[in-house]
Amino acid sequence: MSVTPDLLGLRMPPEWARHARTLISWPVRQSMCHPEAYEELCRSYNEIIQAIAEFEPVTILVNKQEVVAMAMRFYGQQFQVLHIEHDDAWLRDNGPAFLVGEDEKIAGVNWRFNAWGEKYPDWEQDDQVATKVLQYFSVRQFDAPFILEGGAIHVDGEGTLLTTESCLLHAQRNPHLSKNQMEAYLQSFLGVQKVLWLKRGLAGDETDGHIDNVACFAQPGQVLMQICADPADENYAITQENLSAVRHMTDAMGRELEIVTLPQPPAMFAADGQRLTLSYMNFYFVNGGIILPVFGGAAEKTDHAAQEILRQTFPERRIRAIDGLAVVREGGNIHCLTQQMPPGRPYLRQ
Amino acid sequence: MSVTPDLLGLRMPPEWARHARTLISWPVRQSMCHPEAYEELCRSYNEIIQAIAEFEPVTILVNKQEVVAMAMRFYGQQFQVLHIEHDDAWLRDNGPAFLVGEDEKIAGVNWRFNAWGEKYPDWEQDDQVATKVLQYFSVRQFDAPFILEGGAIHVDGEGTLLTTESCLLHAQRNPHLSKNQMEAYLQSFLGVQKVLWLKRGLAGDETDGHIDNVACFAQPGQVLMQICADPADENYAITQENLSAVRHMTDAMGRELEIVTLPQPPAMFAADGQRLTLSYMNFYFVNGGIILPVFGGAAEKTDHAAQEILRQTFPERRIRAIDGLAVVREGGNIHCLTQQMPPGRPYLRQ
Repeated sequence: MSVTPDLLGLRMPPEWARHARTLISWPVRQSMCHPEAYEELCRSYNEIIQAIAEFEPVTILVNKQEVVAMAMRFYGQQFQVLHIEHDDAWLRDNGPAFLVGEDEKIAGVNWRFNAWGEKYPDWEQDDQVATKVLQYFSVRQFDAPFILEGGAIHVDGEGTLLTTESCLLHAQRNPHLSKNQMEAYLQSFLGVQKVLWLKRGLAGDETDGHIDNVACFAQPGQVLMQICADPADENYAITQENLSAVRHMTDAMGRELEIVTLPQPPAMFAADGQRLTLSYMNFYFVNGGIILPVFGGAAEKTDHAAQEILRQTFPERRIRAIDGLAVVREGGNIHCLTQQMPPGRPYLRQ
Repeated sequence: MSVTPDLLGLRMPPEWARHARTLISWPVRQSMCHPEAYEELCRSYNEIIQAIAEFEPVTILVNKQEVVAMAMRFYGQQFQVLHIEHDDAWLRDNGPAFLVGEDEKIAGVNWRFNAWGEKYPDWEQDDQVATKVLQYFSVRQFDAPFILEGGAIHVDGEGTLLTTESCLLHAQRNPHLSKNQMEAYLQSFLGVQKVLWLKRGLAGDETDGHIDNVACFAQPGQVLMQICADPADENYAITQENLSAVRHMTDAMGRELEIVTLPQPPAMFAADGQRLTLSYMNFYFVNGGIILPVFGGAAEKTDHAAQEILRQTFPERRIRAIDGLAVVREGGNIHCLTQQMPPGRPYLRQ
C-alpha cells in the first residue's frame, strides 16, 4: 500500500472547523424515487443553497442533463431561462417580430430563416426558435411565407418601415419576390403602410447590409444615421448615398424626415485581417435607456461623440455604454443579439 | 393565404415603445468564427445581460451544450458551478473527505463508492465524483481501498471517530474486512486514533444506518443524539441502546462523553406508506451557523425543541432552519447532500 494520510500528518478536521466552501451536487431527476417531485426538490435545493450561501461560498456540481433546471431555479430570481436549442445566437434575426393590437393584445410573426442567405449551415434549429418562443409565451403566431431577419427592418410605429434592398432583395433569400410583392408582405405582416428602401448596408457586413448597422428611427419623423466622412473609406459612397436618399424621403404620415448623423468609428480589423463591422447604430432601446456598443482604443473619440449625440437626442433616456468589441468579432452587436417583447396579453387563437 | 396580422389591426411597435422584457440567446460555441474567444464572448454577454437587466427583465434562450458556460458565468458571481457528471446527488456520500495537515495544507480521501451496498445502479459516475472534485481543486488524492460513504462517519478533530457497525461492516460493502482492519484503515486515512462503534442506525434508513442520522460530535467531548422516547416505536430500542453505549465510552483523549439529546420527530410517511427517515441530527455546520432541517406539521413541537437545544448548545452559531421534507422524501437531508472543504493550500504531490 502506498503512503497513507496519517503518515504525512494529515487528519480530517471536524465539520465545525472553518470551511473554505460547501460543495453540493444538483439533484438528478432520473435517480429520484419520486421524479414527479423534481420541481419541488429543486425549489428545496435552491432554498438550501441560498441558506448555506448566507454563511459561506457554495460550489454546485451539476450534470448537463439537469443544468437547465438548475439555471432556471437560480436565474428565476433575476433572469428567465428557457431551454430552446439554437444553431447561432442572433435572436434579432431568428426570433419572432412581436406585434401589438387593440386592448394590449400581442401576437408574433415567424419569419423563415436561412442563416443570412444560406451562409452558415445548419439553421434548422434557428428556423424553429421564433415558433418555440411564441409557443412558450402562448402568443398567436403568424407564419410569414418568406425569408427575413429581424435586423433587416426598422419601424417607426406610425406606419413606416426602413430597410435595405441589398438584403431584402438578395438572390439567396427571396428570389421569387419582386420589390412590390415584398412591400405588400411587409405591410401585411407588420401592419405598416410605407416601406422606405435604402440601397446598401455597410461594406463587408455579412448580413448583406442589415439596416440595423446603417440607420434607425429615433422617433416618428426622425432618423439616426451613421455616416462615413472619409472619401477613401469604402463606406463613404454607401453612407453618403443613403443620407442623400433619406433626405428626399417622406414617411407614411407624409412627414419629411429629420436626420441626426453619428460619426463612423475608425476601421478596426480582426486577427485574420477582416474588417470588423462597427456601428453605433446597433444600439438597443430598453425601457428608459439605450444600450450602446462602444469600441475603445482608436474609437474613443467617436465613442464619445456617439454617446453625446444620443444623450442630446434622447434626453429622457440613460445611455448605457458597453464594450462591443468581443461581440462584433462574431459579426454583430447588441441590437443583433436582442429581441424586445411588448407588454400585453396573448392574442387568443380564434 | 390565411389571415394576416394587418387585417386584425396588429402592427409592429417601434423598439422604443415599452418592453415587457428583452429576449436574448446565449452564444453557441460551435457556431463561432473564433471559438477560442468563447470565454471572452461569454463575459461580454454577461455584461450585456446585466446592463439590460438594469432596465427591464431578461429572458435567456440557452442550448444544453452551453448552459454550463452560461451558469458558470452568472453564478460565478454568487456560486461556483462545476460540470461534474454524477448518478445521484448525495455529495456527502460520494464526495471526498478533505484532510488538513501542517501549514494549512489540504488533501482528500477518495473512498470507493457502491451506492450504499449496491442498492441503486448505476454508480460508476458517482464513484468518480471525489476524484473529479479533488482534481478540480488540484488537491492531492489518497485512494482508500474500501467502500465508505461520508455520511457513515463523524470525527471530533481530536482523534475520535464515531460510526455504526450496521453500515461499515455491512456484507454488501467490505466483506473482506474485519472490524479491526476497518479501524486500522480509518486511522490511516483519516488520521484518527480511536473508533467508537454504535450498533445500528435508524430503522428503515436505506443507508444501513448512517451515523449522520443518529449522533454527531458537537465539540470534542460532547455528543448530540436524537433519542426516541416512545417504546412502541422501532427506533426506541435502537436509540436507547446507542445512548447507553455512548454513556460508557471514552474518546481518543480519554474523556468521558457529555451527551445532549434531541427528541425524535413524530413519524411521517411517504405517499407509498414508507416511513420517512427524519432526523435533526442531519443538520450541517456552516461558518458561524448551523443549517437545520425541520419538518413542520405534526413535527412543529419537536422542530421547536431541536432549535432550542441547538441554540443552547451553540450559542455562538445562528441556527438556520430549512424545510427538510422535500429532500427527505429522496432519502436524506442537508448533511447528506453537502460536503465541507477546509481552507488551505493544496498539499503538493511529491
